[in-house]
Amino acid sequence: MSYRARFENQIAVMKQDGRYRTFIELERIAGEFPAAIWKRKDGEARRVVVWCSNDYLGIGQHPDVLAAMHEALDNHGAGAGGTRNISGTQSQHVRLEAEIADMHEKESALIFTSGWISNLAALSALGKLLPDAVILSDAGNHNSMIEGIKRAGIEKRIWRHNDLAHLEELLLALPPEQPKLIAFESVYSMDGDIAPIADICDLADRFGAMTYLDEVHAVGLYGPQGAGVAEREGVANRLTFIEGTLGKAFGVMGGYVAGPTVMIDVIRSLADSFIFTTSLCPHLAAGALAAIQHLRNDPALREKQQRHVKMLKDMLKDAGLPVLDGPSHIIPLMVGDAHACRAASDRLLEQHGIYVQPINYPTVAHGKERLRITPTPFHTEEHMRQLVDALSAIARESLWPSLRVEAVA
Amino acid sequence: MSYRARFENQIAVMKQDGRYRTFIELERIAGEFPAAIWKRKDGEARRVVVWCSNDYLGIGQHPDVLAAMHEALDNHGAGAGGTRNISGTQSQHVRLEAEIADMHEKESALIFTSGWISNLAALSALGKLLPDAVILSDAGNHNSMIEGIKRAGIEKRIWRHNDLAHLEELLLALPPEQPKLIAFESVYSMDGDIAPIADICDLADRFGAMTYLDEVHAVGLYGPQGAGVAEREGVANRLTFIEGTLGKAFGVMGGYVAGPTVMIDVIRSLADSFIFTTSLCPHLAAGALAAIQHLRNDPALREKQQRHVKMLKDMLKDAGLPVLDGPSHIIPLMVGDAHACRAASDRLLEQHGIYVQPINYPTVAHGKERLRITPTPFHTEEHMRQLVDALSAIARESLWPSLRVEAVA
Ligand SMILES: Cc1ncc(COP(=O)(O)O)c(C=O)c1O
Ligand SMILES: Cc1ncc(COP(=O)(O)O)c(C=O)c1O
Repeated sequence: MSYRARFENQIAVMKQDGRYRTFIELERIAGEFPAAIWKRKDGEARRVVVWCSNDYLGIGQHPDVLAAMHEALDNHGAGAGGTRNISGTQSQHVRLEAEIADMHEKESALIFTSGWISNLAALSALGKLLPDAVILSDAGNHNSMIEGIKRAGIEKRIWRHNDLAHLEELLLALPPEQPKLIAFESVYSMDGDIAPIADICDLADRFGAMTYLDEVHAVGLYGPQGAGVAEREGVANRLTFIEGTLGKAFGVMGGYVAGPTVMIDVIRSLADSFIFTTSLCPHLAAGALAAIQHLRNDPALREKQQRHVKMLKDMLKDAGLPVLDGPSHIIPLMVGDAHACRAASDRLLEQHGIYVQPINYPTVAHGKERLRITPTPFHTEEHMRQLVDALSAIARESLWPSLRVEAVA
Repeated sequence: MSYRARFENQIAVMKQDGRYRTFIELERIAGEFPAAIWKRKDGEARRVVVWCSNDYLGIGQHPDVLAAMHEALDNHGAGAGGTRNISGTQSQHVRLEAEIADMHEKESALIFTSGWISNLAALSALGKLLPDAVILSDAGNHNSMIEGIKRAGIEKRIWRHNDLAHLEELLLALPPEQPKLIAFESVYSMDGDIAPIADICDLADRFGAMTYLDEVHAVGLYGPQGAGVAEREGVANRLTFIEGTLGKAFGVMGGYVAGPTVMIDVIRSLADSFIFTTSLCPHLAAGALAAIQHLRNDPALREKQQRHVKMLKDMLKDAGLPVLDGPSHIIPLMVGDAHACRAASDRLLEQHGIYVQPINYPTVAHGKERLRITPTPFHTEEHMRQLVDALSAIARESLWPSLRVEAVA
């Protein structure tokens, strides 16, 4: 078979399985978030309301953030022009790293071009330094942590998602003197559930393990300063590492890891995905710094977001829609079938001007297909009403598997 | 030994070996490239001339590029707010991908958050799709290609750097029907030498291999439209894939792969480092598009750069300095010792206001330590004179190993 034929075959299989992804082309409109222009394949442009953005607080259009970026662009130009080591360390990077360390109650922080790379770089470098160690990884951990752990190339144990009895069991079975790292997330992005961080810290203390917490879906959103769930629970200083992104509630792009200076210094020195790449544009660092400073000093946006989350969740439940109830700002609406999920999303977009991306395998397991809804401070009650009405109509008519089960119960 | 002690130990070893890196903190000054402010650890700020930036053409301060970025920021806000699949595909991405495909004479292109990720994503996805294939990789390939090939998890063969007889030998030894991919770079970034692309394409045709060319250090700089060395040699359409960065001659950040539509579609569908990460900020895509369009239509900057490269190379040679002569814009000045290399760089910075980062192991082999100089269109003859005078003084007084050899000859 020719090369081309093999690739064509792969695409055909994905299409058959309902796994083939078509990207929805948007144009965000600064100042009118969550509205955006949807550019259809046929050239038509339509105004839609976006309900699935991870710019959770709409901070990506905040005047402070945009002003900081404009100013840095004007003063320092576009790119960094080099890797961090070769002319690519700018004052904006240094200031942002100091702010992040301070926010997470850590000695130091290191920024990367994405959260994905932060996890890859940090976890693989830790493995290089501690070849005799074992990583204990929550079964629900994100792809970027899994890849980092793979590249660490050391022993690993997977504990059942958020199951502390299982984690304890695994820890008990390991030699007491073996170095250990427990890797997990605070808010899990697809179910919206939250890890029992303090209890995990207790286990880590008991077994002499280091801890690595991914707060990608929590930074900016939880805690008095928006430093994440660990801050809210008052345990930030008990964690060895806290990892986060600059691309979700902080509205820009990039990622980071915060921790003890000497450990961050080793990641800086050993992680090739950090060493061999052009550094983050200085104006992005400036924008992220402005976003973080705003969110540390002013809880208004996240408080409003939480109110909107509660309001929408109640409206969806009142309408009898299959909400996966949870403690975070992420509202999964369970559909339970890949084709029904895509059909619902298509119809929301085509007929109602509402954009919610269907979440299918491999992002979630087969049978767990869903619409993942993320209310922001900028979604109005009218937006919510339109969403709930549209969803009610669609769910009633297309009989989602998730609803059939409910109907039986 | 405690965790902390093990990390401290690693840092101590690196310091002893001269491998420990201290980042030079800069503030670029838009409009005055290659001048920058050097922020010393003691708080003092000094103006310096940067001679080691990979913003090869200073396009990162070009008014067209900055205007495009300001406009996109004002109209669309800061971040993309999602992965490409979940609300993170913006018109700027789609337009940039079309422009890149057109520039490289390919059907399609896909952008990533960095060139590092482009190589990781593309090569590992190709391995996933072609588990029976073998990758033939030039021994000088960049870390990001090596990591991508590792993650591909398939057979590989390393051919001696730019040695086509060796590549042919390896190809001859493989089963004719086995799928093959030849992976190499055009301009190698540390020596500045250039691969014989047409001859490699001949071999690829003869053995039915696909080709993957990294033009990271060539895009923007070579060929009538600045599409790279393959364009200059008239062979762009013979290559299966061309990979590049948006962070060097295009002055922003990000990376891409261009190739046949169906193959790019498979990379898009399978590469987890593409799927599970927030997409490039739309205004960065807008800035990169402006840079590419400018450089496709106007060769003035790269012509001026080439004149400056020749001028400086001649001046360095006339001064008896150990230039590694080559066909590209990269001028390595061989020092041959890690401590001497760092000392030279320190003295240039401290005493002469000139910044050239020392390049030591592991970026280059032991004994190949160097100062890597990259002249741009914005370095003046006076800048060059100052650089050559300073280097002459330093090299004379500190007797670099590379000069001692010359003295004997
Ligand atoms: C838990 C988690 N960690 C890390 C990442 C990667 O962050 P980024 O988008 O900044 O690459 C994501 C998603 O994007 C995530 O969901
Ligand atoms: C040959 C080569 N490929 C890829 C990269 C990675 O590109 P980026 O800096 O955009 O990550 C680099 C260096 O940075 C490189 O030298």
